[in-house]
Amino acid sequence: MITGKNYIGSKLSAKGNITFTTFNPESNKDNTIVFTEVTSAEIDEAIALAIKCFQEYKSISGLKKAGFLNAIANEILALDDVLIQTYCLESGLPEERAKGERARTIGQLRNFANLVSEGSWVEATIDTANPYRKPIPKLDIRKVSIPLGPVVVFGASNFPLAYSTAGGDTAAALAAGCPVLVKSHPMHAGTGALVASAIIKAAKKTGMPNGVFSNLNSAGVKVGQQLVLHPGIKAVGFTGSTKAGRALLDLAAKREEPIPVFAEMGSINPVVLLPKALENRHKEIAKTFANSITLGAGQFCTNPGLLLGVKSESLANFIDHLSEEILTINPTCMLHPSMKDKYEINQKKIVSQEHVSVVADYQKIAKANYAEQVVVTVKGKDFLTNPILNLEVFGPFSMIVQCENKNELQEVITNLEGQLTGTVISEDDELSDFSEVISSLQNKVGRIIFNGVPTGVEVCESMVHGGPYPASTDSRFSAVGISSIKRWVRPFSYQSWPNHLLPKELQNDNPLKIFRTVNRKSTKDEIKK
Amino acid sequence: MITGKNYIGSKLSAKGNITFTTFNPESNKDNTIVFTEVTSAEIDEAIALAIKCFQEYKSISGLKKAGFLNAIANEILALDDVLIQTYCLESGLPEERAKGERARTIGQLRNFANLVSEGSWVEATIDTANPYRKPIPKLDIRKVSIPLGPVVVFGASNFPLAYSTAGGDTAAALAAGCPVLVKSHPMHAGTGALVASAIIKAAKKTGMPNGVFSNLNSAGVKVGQQLVLHPGIKAVGFTGSTKAGRALLDLAAKREEPIPVFAEMGSINPVVLLPKALENRHKEIAKTFANSITLGAGQFCTNPGLLLGVKSESLANFIDHLSEEILTINPTCMLHPSMKDKYEINQKKIVSQEHVSVVADYQKIAKANYAEQVVVTVKGKDFLTNPILNLEVFGPFSMIVQCENKNELQEVITNLEGQLTGTVISEDDELSDFSEVISSLQNKVGRIIFNGVPTGVEVCESMVHGGPYPASTDSRFSAVGISSIKRWVRPFSYQSWPNHLLPKELQNDNPLKIFRTVNRKSTKDEIKK
Repeated sequence: MITGKNYIGSKLSAKGNITFTTFNPESNKDNTIVFTEVTSAEIDEAIALAIKCFQEYKSISGLKKAGFLNAIANEILALDDVLIQTYCLESGLPEERAKGERARTIGQLRNFANLVSEGSWVEATIDTANPYRKPIPKLDIRKVSIPLGPVVVFGASNFPLAYSTAGGDTAAALAAGCPVLVKSHPMHAGTGALVASAIIKAAKKTGMPNGVFSNLNSAGVKVGQQLVLHPGIKAVGFTGSTKAGRALLDLAAKREEPIPVFAEMGSINPVVLLPKALENRHKEIAKTFANSITLGAGQFCTNPGLLLGVKSESLANFIDHLSEEILTINPTCMLHPSMKDKYEINQKKIVSQEHVSVVADYQKIAKANYAEQVVVTVKGKDFLTNPILNLEVFGPFSMIVQCENKNELQEVITNLEGQLTGTVISEDDELSDFSEVISSLQNKVGRIIFNGVPTGVEVCESMVHGGPYPASTDSRFSAVGISSIKRWVRPFSYQSWPNHLLPKELQNDNPLKIFRTVNRKSTKDEIKK
Repeated sequence: MITGKNYIGSKLSAKGNITFTTFNPESNKDNTIVFTEVTSAEIDEAIALAIKCFQEYKSISGLKKAGFLNAIANEILALDDVLIQTYCLESGLPEERAKGERARTIGQLRNFANLVSEGSWVEATIDTANPYRKPIPKLDIRKVSIPLGPVVVFGASNFPLAYSTAGGDTAAALAAGCPVLVKSHPMHAGTGALVASAIIKAAKKTGMPNGVFSNLNSAGVKVGQQLVLHPGIKAVGFTGSTKAGRALLDLAAKREEPIPVFAEMGSINPVVLLPKALENRHKEIAKTFANSITLGAGQFCTNPGLLLGVKSESLANFIDHLSEEILTINPTCMLHPSMKDKYEINQKKIVSQEHVSVVADYQKIAKANYAEQVVVTVKGKDFLTNPILNLEVFGPFSMIVQCENKNELQEVITNLEGQLTGTVISEDDELSDFSEVISSLQNKVGRIIFNGVPTGVEVCESMVHGGPYPASTDSRFSAVGISSIKRWVRPFSYQSWPNHLLPKELQNDNPLKIFRTVNRKSTKDEIKK
């Protein structure tokens, strides 16, 4: 049952007097459950609990944390249809997508459970003493990853499950040993409340300390600001717009103690269409990209918003086919009227620029909040001189830039901002002719794709979801995959520490049987004294 | 020969009209060589070279980078006596220290050379495709660490070799594949110029592209600011005061594209003296810490500036012995009159606070720029209520805080800022009585030491030199040891990329024979198709 209250640790609480409801974009009506925004005092209470809890939670074994994460997954599955229905009512997304995203969320939780129950992820590194070394004896030093402290996670509008309450950021932080405070996304506060109840149940069942998780409702910006500025908070995870992410980064940078903010933000995901590929396959490529551009009403951070090619007959043919294909795809519902409004404002801003031609515009929109699917084209030189054309239009929109030649294509790429992905559509034998173009593209992105589409982010260890600013605020980390746990930990050294008081990961007999680097060799062996 | 000019890439250049000299604190006289501050145009030129060079240098093989790093080490050794003499003339430090620091610098360069010639450090991670996976096929994704781009390194006043021109930051960045621009420290511009000439020679001998290294003279702050604000710079390494480090961090945070700043800054390195240890060994402990406090005129970031104990007769005895020991140690020369002035101002600021008692004050100073060695004591409650007492006094100074009881000791630790190190002086059987105290200490530091001193930072893989702010600006990284290379790289994914165009680290046949994670298993095996 969704109460509309906040979870301050395991306690339901609603002391505030600001309330809000979620919205059903499919029916274009408010949903009925009333949510109470968390108060400043409740925030302080939740953070105090998290700080206290951290002293215990930071040292809980990997096996117990795995039990907790798996229990969260089980409790989310146990929510069954009510979760799927709430998700759909609050997002306008279809049931199939809800189920797919739930599967991904469960998969992420179980991946992190496996990671921490196995245990080698802490990068235990041991250099043993050598009393005979000259000129001075060598001391025993042992390093392990430890959690940063309480982490704030901001729910994302476009992933009510996989990037929100128990999404990737939360799963990674809990796995790392950090208590989590979620600033629930107001568009899907009900979905968030259900998942929060699952986390609280799981925490109780597996004996986690109170304060390991709190869920805070808010429809404005003040709650997020108070959270980021609180000295008890040691890191922030965010997925959303560049504007909001940058605002949080700036806030965190101004603190007396600045803290890391990992924000995954804007991206227009450039796609480079090489000439031979267009010549041979323009029709097929057009169909593939029409689907990728309109998938989920274009509301993916990996949506291909920028297609780059060199002027040619086949590029012209590609544009024609893409336009045709776009018009055969039925528009779908956007997440919220505010998303649609913002989409239309940005899209019109682009369309109203000089030298921008609209090549496809699906206008037969039957219902409110359904997205108009738009493709435009512009010359390379105009794109280079008008920075507004770099704007991310979040929705089913894409811009084709027609460059004069290879040099102009290279220049366009060199002038792009940081991106999550870059895609190259190419025949095998033309790729090496464009090695400089591809090298420039690599400087701008976190992931580069050959003959594919950027949408669809595989959750695996080799995935990088992040990239140079503004794709993310710190390109040294990924927001997806088990390596994303590294955002929430720091290395810590013990020098000459008594063996029995070391964490198990560093003890001589390697009781957890993890891989460790001992005197520069990777091994599971124990250290003989 | 020291020309006093800047290295703009491999070119000696001195177009500016601001000049300065270094200072010999031992003789209390200016040195004779005149250095010319780099101009704004020369900075732009050096950065343009670095940007251009990056396109080539980012893809140079680990073996070639290792050759370059080893050549730098060889060229530094070839500078022989002139380097040692210049070092001593510019720092007032003894020859033995100069030679020790040179050995450390050479060791760091060779460590990174070994790391990149072996090659596994890039954390190559491969998930191979599975076309039969349901509901959707799995794509081939491969991840590797790639360099961020041109890095600015600020030379440190207190380590003219090991943390300056070819010090840890530079060695790590060059190893990572990042061109480096050093803002030379004005107190030892000659030492820096000599080392820079060694780097330039090594670059030429090993065929590195021009722009891989530049050395920029400056006695003010503007050069550093221009460097940090330049869009071509992608990361910053700094060792120095909290004030200067924070200023750079704030500058970088305000950029249109914020960049990572790794600054290793202030620390007072708390030492917790447990009762039984004091009872049994107060005399020996006093001698050990008198040496650690005065080592190198206290000019180490790991200097033990804060000794914490619970009021007792043995603590009183310890204080007496420490005072006696301090007075038996001959004062030494500080790095520069400005360092001594700052030391005296801060030391007097502390001494002038209410309730602070001076217990040792070595005042028989024979020479200018020699440091007065001072130890003071204060009650726990006074320390807790007066934040000025947390001030770092960079020099041979320490403060003993006498707490009423264990709870007050814990409170003092809980209220500390972040620190590089924490030390526990304890008998084996009393440590578990203080587990909460130690847990709180752990939250504040990057390295914890049992029955030792914080001075003396072993350069090894398990070392963490860094810690919660303000010890460093990002506790997720270490400034010492081969893992410090991670500051300058980001993960990068290739999706469905043609095998022959992948970097060697990711190709199926594993031509570099490195350890890789293939489908979640660590292996050196090739991938069979």
